Amino acid sequence: MSYARQMLDSYPHNAGLDADVLAATIDALTDCAQACTADVDADLSEQDLAEMVRCIRLCLNCADVCTATAVIVSRQAEYDAAVARPQLEACVAICKSCGDECERHARHHRHCRVCAEACRRCEQACRDLLDVMK
Amino acid sequence: MSYARQMLDSYPHNAGLDADVLAATIDALTDCAQACTADVDADLSEQDLAEMVRCIRLCLNCADVCTATAVIVSRQAEYDAAVARPQLEACVAICKSCGDECERHARHHRHCRVCAEACRRCEQACRDLLDVMK
Amino acid sequence: MSYARQMLDSYPHNAGLDADVLAATIDALTDCAQACTADVDADLSEQDLAEMVRCIRLCLNCADVCTATAVIVSRQAEYDAAVARPQLEACVAICKSCGDECERHARHHRHCRVCAEACRRCEQACRDLLDVMK
Amino acid sequence: MSYARQMLDSYPHNAGLDADVLAATIDALTDCAQACTADVDADLSEQDLAEMVRCIRLCLNCADVCTATAVIVSRQAEYDAAVARPQLEACVAICKSCGDECERHARHHRHCRVCAEACRRCEQACRDLLDVMK
Repeated sequence: MSYARQMLDSYPHNAGLDADVLAATIDALTDCAQACTADVDADLSEQDLAEMVRCIRLCLNCADVCTATAVIVSRQAEYDAAVARPQLEACVAICKSCGDECERHARHHRHCRVCAEACRRCEQACRDLLDVMK
Repeated sequence: MSYARQMLDSYPHNAGLDADVLAATIDALTDCAQACTADVDADLSEQDLAEMVRCIRLCLNCADVCTATAVIVSRQAEYDAAVARPQLEACVAICKSCGDECERHARHHRHCRVCAEACRRCEQACRDLLDVMK
Repeated sequence: MSYARQMLDSYPHNAGLDADVLAATIDALTDCAQACTADVDADLSEQDLAEMVRCIRLCLNCADVCTATAVIVSRQAEYDAAVARPQLEACVAICKSCGDECERHARHHRHCRVCAEACRRCEQACRDLLDVMK
Repeated sequence: MSYARQMLDSYPHNAGLDADVLAATIDALTDCAQACTADVDADLSEQDLAEMVRCIRLCLNCADVCTATAVIVSRQAEYDAAVARPQLEACVAICKSCGDECERHARHHRHCRVCAEACRRCEQACRDLLDVMK
């Protein structure tokens, strides 16, 4: 069980969000942030560096947005949908753009394939949380 | 002249955003992130701590969203409005909520008054950048 | 297999650090950052809030230091021990302080018990990486 | 007057650190983080991209370490030297490495000259705070 899940189970109370969906989203966000950070580092080591600039730029932004979104949704005890929703929507946008770009390089660079998958899962997880957040 | 402005002036090229508006937004975002971080710290030292919990929660979120938004808009050379716009909109939302809450405490706590002002200026700066970003 | 491990396996090359130790450290750092963020949120919901202020302060710092340390060590392709070592040492220091404080509350608050464990594991993981980093 | 200074002046109490030195350090840390983030973005737009990879890697790390250090020292009300000192020392190390590398490119790229200066000022500011922190 992830720490995100263990922490949710140990709260004095929660704001009524489904703990399974919330924990899965937090885990997908931290996974995606880590994958994007590592993908930038791997891209910078590639021979075809000039081809990877757009991927690097998107992964940098995706890592930062996912990290911020992860802490926003982790603070769930009194969460405010007026704040959490737009941040999740911003995260969906960057995960979509970054996943698309990583996929373009997935055949040549295995790290981009792994990162694309992390972006796709994160995008979906954010959408799932938005669905239950109404 | 702030480092944000100096860096913008030294770029090999830019994506066509007005450098004055962009630098002002970056400075307002980093100011607001810092003010919110310090306000949490000050709130935690107050006698009426139980009254300050909502302020602490909003300032924590506002600091993280402003920090992420600052780096997104700082990466302007090839900026992507599809990514930057929703992040700026999320930032407007949290600055509005956080500024409202800080203002409620502004009479009793000078640090909340200073922080409320930083939130208001940041909200407006994000709106200004959205206006020129079309 | 965690994304940290998958990404390490997909790199064009690495800087010679043991991938098992490195992946375990990255995972422990992101777990600890998340647990500390959630513990602050849970602490803020407790009845004995005034008793939890020191725990909140340490968890805030621990989350931020772990997040920074995670990205530093994730960028391992050309890692520089002169930079990574002091950051890992700073992380050991905060994980030790934060773990001690969380442990003081572990009997009363389950979220502090979970967080203390995440801090202990992270402290040890950072020490393990320092050992192989010479 | 910077927000860092205004916030320090508005605190219910402080931990005895000199407010001038502390505010100057916080400002230098946020300036350096911003300059490094922008320098990465500018480097990625340069023709001699392959020459800039080490600069990009160091600026990425420097931005993240400065951001974390800024929040640690901003939380000064009950600051703990056992935590703050090692983080400041890690920050001195990365600012030194990053400043050296940026200086190597200062003649060719004005953004690296501006960033080098931000790193030097931040390194010195962290040393100044360490001096008064005993």
